Amino acid sequence: MTALVSDIGGTNTRLGLVEDGQLVPTSLDSFANDDFDSYEAVVETYLERLGQRRLDACCIALAAAPTADAAQLTNRDWTIGRTGMRALTGAPFIGFLNDFEALGYALIAPQRLAAQTVLASATPRPARATRMVLGAGTGFNAAACYWPAFGAAPHVAAAECGHTTLAIEGEEERVLQAALAAGRGRASVERALSGNGLREIYAFVCDRDGQPCEAGTSAEISTAAVAGADEQAVAAAHLFLRLLGRVAGDLALTFLPHGGIYLYGGVCRALAPLIVGTDTFRDAFRAKGRMAPFMADFDAHLLLDDRVALSGCVEWLRIVASSRSGKSGACPA
Amino acid sequence: MTALVSDIGGTNTRLGLVEDGQLVPTSLDSFANDDFDSYEAVVETYLERLGQRRLDACCIALAAAPTADAAQLTNRDWTIGRTGMRALTGAPFIGFLNDFEALGYALIAPQRLAAQTVLASATPRPARATRMVLGAGTGFNAAACYWPAFGAAPHVAAAECGHTTLAIEGEEERVLQAALAAGRGRASVERALSGNGLREIYAFVCDRDGQPCEAGTSAEISTAAVAGADEQAVAAAHLFLRLLGRVAGDLALTFLPHGGIYLYGGVCRALAPLIVGTDTFRDAFRAKGRMAPFMADFDAHLLLDDRVALSGCVEWLRIVASSRSGKSGACPA
Repeated sequence: MTALVSDIGGTNTRLGLVEDGQLVPTSLDSFANDDFDSYEAVVETYLERLGQRRLDACCIALAAAPTADAAQLTNRDWTIGRTGMRALTGAPFIGFLNDFEALGYALIAPQRLAAQTVLASATPRPARATRMVLGAGTGFNAAACYWPAFGAAPHVAAAECGHTTLAIEGEEERVLQAALAAGRGRASVERALSGNGLREIYAFVCDRDGQPCEAGTSAEISTAAVAGADEQAVAAAHLFLRLLGRVAGDLALTFLPHGGIYLYGGVCRALAPLIVGTDTFRDAFRAKGRMAPFMADFDAHLLLDDRVALSGCVEWLRIVASSRSGKSGACPA
Repeated sequence: MTALVSDIGGTNTRLGLVEDGQLVPTSLDSFANDDFDSYEAVVETYLERLGQRRLDACCIALAAAPTADAAQLTNRDWTIGRTGMRALTGAPFIGFLNDFEALGYALIAPQRLAAQTVLASATPRPARATRMVLGAGTGFNAAACYWPAFGAAPHVAAAECGHTTLAIEGEEERVLQAALAAGRGRASVERALSGNGLREIYAFVCDRDGQPCEAGTSAEISTAAVAGADEQAVAAAHLFLRLLGRVAGDLALTFLPHGGIYLYGGVCRALAPLIVGTDTFRDAFRAKGRMAPFMADFDAHLLLDDRVALSGCVEWLRIVASSRSGKSGACPA
């Protein structure tokens, strides 16, 4: 079976081909969304580059809640219809997945994902234990991959964690909360833990310190923070990581991911040296009062590339094929 | 099949018999834990009251994380061993469930639960949609009942939501946070949203208003608040409900329970007239900025009695029996 898998991000769309249940490495490609008027135009360009193929299925991961016939992107004026995709690709099966659901499905086979350890646990991971992914990029969200007690296929639970209330502690963070909430009524997790959030936290720190903002984009702030070149960028990055650690710890207490926690997204990748090389994230993750020993039993890893959602699409297609063929849907660990 | 189901709470233990998959109403009983040295002593007394029966199975819901052989209560020096329970009851099958997992299983058949509507949604509940229970009593916790996309049996996800960070907004709540965190390092959700939490919130309000505390226990505070008899009790109850609404809304954004939200626990039941009869809880639940329209699509109900965990044990036993007999485990809506 040959399938097209696709992950429509905020800025870029990533695509790949799947042959015999595996992503074909040489088929991976990425396109800037702004260069195209529609998703179909991206796919057309991609398929021309590859040379036309007969496709059996398509799976598209995107930040949207699909209806039966189509999916509308929440952050771009693209609507993707099943009928149009069937006509364009020749594939009879067109599947849509929420982008974080796709990340959740990738956690079925974490050994296939490039990752760096952030938190190590003393105890081995139990078999069939819940895993969790959380990501800070254009937005923020999380998803859990559960192994149900009854039944063989994993269950991936989507969520809208980015819209929950940012949990602040202490007076300085209360002032930050007020700054983030200004004109919006409240400060959600996503308001702080995203690319735009890092920029707002940096602006807050510069204002607090009476310094001009030297860095502009979140990428510039991350680079300056990692290089140690800008005192406010360093402070902003550590404040960001303290909030990220606290939120990750709260999500761990919610989903109980004893099988592993995976950090995803452009901002996490950009801050990787500080996540791994300093104690800020780790200390904030574990700062749960008398539950601190409980927190020590979780391990966390940073996902290093941006093809994770494509891997998730591959896993999902495999489960769909198994369930359609009447097999149990049992999955390798 | 005759089974014994049991729910060991912080103060009381509730028991009942199950015949042909249904709780026998006349068999329901409740015992004060302080009157007994062990759980087995409770069961012995109960079985004597009923007249000895042949039991095929036992299911015990409790606030604990069971091991393979036994379960140790977290808040009382009772250890319940499988071997001892088999000898005591003659039942070959002894099952343990986390107390909130049991509540989650009860949500498989919510039509069997006595409940009062708190939030009505304009749209009908989708079939096979996630449901969620959250409870404020001795402690605080939540659980979700998912319908996996692949597989017939529902998946109940346990959590430790009570230990997450209490989400505060604004300066007054920041001062409350400091009071709740005093000597503890942090303020968890449970620190505020529990019986003890209501007492601490009341003490905070009395201190803020320069008034002596008239009410003592959380039951007295609830009664005074509902009666409108004590200005500080009323204020404390509304502050409690504002926090409860916010936390419930954040949990809804996390678990996406489009199948319904269920409030449980002694403190929720005691404050029922204010949850239903004022806007405090509802307004706080929906106050999610631009996600407010999304929040309007959830409905919420207050569970009115304390036998919900027993109902959950019944559902769990039914699923266990189905999976052992090789059936699909398909469940009625």
